[in-house]
Amino acid sequence: MADEVKLYRTWSSPYGLRIVWAMHIKGIEYENVFEDLSQKSPQLLQYNPVHKKIPVLVHKGKPICESLVILEYIDETWKETTPLLPQDPYEKAMARFWAKFVDDKLLPSVTSVFTEKGYEAKKEALVPAVQNLELIEEQLKGKKFFGGESIGYVDLVLGWMAFLLDVFEEVIDLKLFDAHKFPLLSGWMKNFCDAPAIKQHLPPRDRLVTKYQLLHEKYQTTSN
Amino acid sequence: MADEVKLYRTWSSPYGLRIVWAMHIKGIEYENVFEDLSQKSPQLLQYNPVHKKIPVLVHKGKPICESLVILEYIDETWKETTPLLPQDPYEKAMARFWAKFVDDKLLPSVTSVFTEKGYEAKKEALVPAVQNLELIEEQLKGKKFFGGESIGYVDLVLGWMAFLLDVFEEVIDLKLFDAHKFPLLSGWMKNFCDAPAIKQHLPPRDRLVTKYQLLHEKYQTTSN
Repeated sequence: MADEVKLYRTWSSPYGLRIVWAMHIKGIEYENVFEDLSQKSPQLLQYNPVHKKIPVLVHKGKPICESLVILEYIDETWKETTPLLPQDPYEKAMARFWAKFVDDKLLPSVTSVFTEKGYEAKKEALVPAVQNLELIEEQLKGKKFFGGESIGYVDLVLGWMAFLLDVFEEVIDLKLFDAHKFPLLSGWMKNFCDAPAIKQHLPPRDRLVTKYQLLHEKYQTTSN
Repeated sequence: MADEVKLYRTWSSPYGLRIVWAMHIKGIEYENVFEDLSQKSPQLLQYNPVHKKIPVLVHKGKPICESLVILEYIDETWKETTPLLPQDPYEKAMARFWAKFVDDKLLPSVTSVFTEKGYEAKKEALVPAVQNLELIEEQLKGKKFFGGESIGYVDLVLGWMAFLLDVFEEVIDLKLFDAHKFPLLSGWMKNFCDAPAIKQHLPPRDRLVTKYQLLHEKYQTTSN
């Protein structure tokens, strides 16, 4: 089966890791194809001519692009294994709403703290990021994971937060996340990273720090 | 049943109209609640506290926000009627990919032609918009609608184009869409607007022209 399922990704992209984690949660055999984004392979450009981005999942020769679309495809194709999305249409709609919120609002707001130049600009960018985190914190009330007792769709979409926030904090030398202010998210981050399907498939922290240090230097020194 | 399903929208929002059309295609009774976005109702703010935007579908007292999320909810809740999304997981993934492309790429690129100041800037903004239209044109090869023989999810998501492009052209006095260059999209626009569920639920053209004339004047005269 491994030759039937290929995942084009990079070692560190949180979008690609969403798919890696989903594959391991559902126990699907697949082959990783690591891309160098500075020199994209002809295969990647052929499979995702519209966005020319990873991740791309190729299943039986047919490509699927966009991580949220891939996650739903995986859940619908390998139905017999651990479900990622709730079955109830309303609960499913809520999961889709919050996944979209993470990608459209939370992730860009946290990223802008990283990319803004200088302490004052970063502090200012932190305000909407914290407001977005507060909205996410509320969604965890009474639950271990966003998916309930086990990791689901929203957990995978938010997964980047569990391992990247403290890398960002180290690199930019600014507190992004106060565990006392966000006790539920703080607990979720630990539970998420401790889950076997995730723990064994997290990028090495030291490599992440090096990567984001270089990226941060670039953002701080180049003009907008 | 009408009292069980309420749709918060405006008379002209393409996002709200996606839901109107879906309800009529599927034959679902519902009540329209028209919002004045300059003075949002307490109900709208209560139902969509995160984005404070229309459309919101309220079903049995529970709100669903974001038009793409609402469309999937409708399709999964009223399963027994005309399906909007394909059943096959791969075809479904393709529909989701193109719907996301319309919202993330095509719609913003066309909107920017409208909002840019002056003829030269508009002509420049037209380049990526036309490239995006070319990608969409390709998807119609061999098909009457994006959904095949009948209107489906991607058709509803792209529906704004069928009735707004020529309104935009009149208002900004610039050709956006060359029917000879896009024969398939041109045919689709006609077929879409002629379908009974759509035709009876399009905003009056003269009101649209007035609305967008005022909006365009605002964009042309205010500083960025």
